[in-house]
Amino acid sequence: MRDFNEETITDAVVDRFDGTENPRLRQIMQALVRHAHAFVREVELTQEEWLAAIGFLTRTGHITDDKRQEFILLSDTLGISMLVDAINHRMPDGATETTVLGPFYVDNPPVQPADADISGGETGTPLYVTATVSAPDGTPLAGAQVDVWQSDEDGYYDVQKPGDDPNLRARFIADEDGRISFWSIVPKYYPIPADGPVGDMLEATGRHPYRPAHIHFMIAHEGYETLVTHLFMEGDPYLDSDAVFGVKQSLIVAPQAQTGPAPAAANKPQGSAWMRLDHRFGLKPTA
Amino acid sequence: MRDFNEETITDAVVDRFDGTENPRLRQIMQALVRHAHAFVREVELTQEEWLAAIGFLTRTGHITDDKRQEFILLSDTLGISMLVDAINHRMPDGATETTVLGPFYVDNPPVQPADADISGGETGTPLYVTATVSAPDGTPLAGAQVDVWQSDEDGYYDVQKPGDDPNLRARFIADEDGRISFWSIVPKYYPIPADGPVGDMLEATGRHPYRPAHIHFMIAHEGYETLVTHLFMEGDPYLDSDAVFGVKQSLIVAPQAQTGPAPAAANKPQGSAWMRLDHRFGLKPTA
Repeated sequence: MRDFNEETITDAVVDRFDGTENPRLRQIMQALVRHAHAFVREVELTQEEWLAAIGFLTRTGHITDDKRQEFILLSDTLGISMLVDAINHRMPDGATETTVLGPFYVDNPPVQPADADISGGETGTPLYVTATVSAPDGTPLAGAQVDVWQSDEDGYYDVQKPGDDPNLRARFIADEDGRISFWSIVPKYYPIPADGPVGDMLEATGRHPYRPAHIHFMIAHEGYETLVTHLFMEGDPYLDSDAVFGVKQSLIVAPQAQTGPAPAAANKPQGSAWMRLDHRFGLKPTA
Repeated sequence: MRDFNEETITDAVVDRFDGTENPRLRQIMQALVRHAHAFVREVELTQEEWLAAIGFLTRTGHITDDKRQEFILLSDTLGISMLVDAINHRMPDGATETTVLGPFYVDNPPVQPADADISGGETGTPLYVTATVSAPDGTPLAGAQVDVWQSDEDGYYDVQKPGDDPNLRARFIADEDGRISFWSIVPKYYPIPADGPVGDMLEATGRHPYRPAHIHFMIAHEGYETLVTHLFMEGDPYLDSDAVFGVKQSLIVAPQAQTGPAPAAANKPQGSAWMRLDHRFGLKPTA
């Protein structure tokens, strides 16, 4: 255990984890060491570059607090979050594909009745959404709990703005047909927070910080895996270059411009033109 | 650029860095993505494990400040620091091998004359050190700047303790024979700071936090690469399991117990028995 060189040190470090009682932790740590060392060896990292990496991680830690998670942003922008998502959600036919949770979910959003307006007075094109939650074979899942959240027209979520009122965020309980409906506004593309180290990384590598317009859904029902996904808006200019690699073809939807009388018109946000989106979500049964 | 799966997402993320203007940064980021994804794919990281990793990095960032660098500790305990060191210091014959800088170096330590006592009144076995700095062919390097630092008998460096007085830390300038000499105390093994996330990692993996006893040296001379190294004490119980993988056989030395009259006896720390250590350092010429 003395006199490591650049070839032998990796085995020495891997061996040091042999005593790990938890076999899964042992597997993870030993794989982490092998892959991290392979990276350093491949690029022949200099001392200055290593120190720059330490400084980057330090700044990432210091900007992270209970309202901002820069490490998740880093994981997202390196495609790691979506890879973890893909590995853990191999979906059967009829089940909706997943995508990243993102940093803006808030647990226990306010429960709203069918057809409620969740726009909270935000300006934008009114959007009437209906969604049906079902099993892969189409059986409706009555009582499914559907959490919805999205950004405003300027690209901000309520938690990024002053004040504590939930806005563009709600929980709906599906009726006996597995159906929910609500009024909101059409979402718009927006940049992920780019004033920290992850923003610096994007700029230094010539990448833009934008995510294509989307509405988040988290859907839970007993006997089924909780579904975390988005619906993306067809035609968005960033669908092919989402900063966090979250787009899947099956999650792109096309709200339709409407001319007729609006449903639940009393709840419709201000604006003459309005659009409509109807979608079916399929949940995967737990094993 | 839509519809990634767990196989194709890595290429999609790598391609996203194609626009990086700096070719070295492009190489590093693309290699980082490939190796990080290979790790996630190999262990099939679950969402819960991913979230635990995010939490670990967050705690590592939050405990790091201007006196404590937990990310360096993490790099050290995963053998990454020593690997970077090995890659960047391929030494010719006659040049002293390097090891990690560690987190306790302080720039511009107080300059002391030959034979000064740097123990600052700390108790321990008095140790008289002489060192000669030379080129690989043995030519002495007059005027070499030799920074020395070590922990006290309890395993603490001065910067870990209250007060601002430098202690067990000094700078010597080599004389015309490339020689320095000083009085100190024999160092002792000690644990790296183990009350943070890195300590938790060591405990969960059955690893101890100890470093074998050593004295740090940083030696600079114009026309030569600055040497950052330790001298380790033969017989230390942790030589074969240094928590940060810093030991090299060529850096292990054996201070000799002395019985005769002490040199510069007026400067000798309190204690009847004393030991002596004589060492030659070789510096590598800059290219």
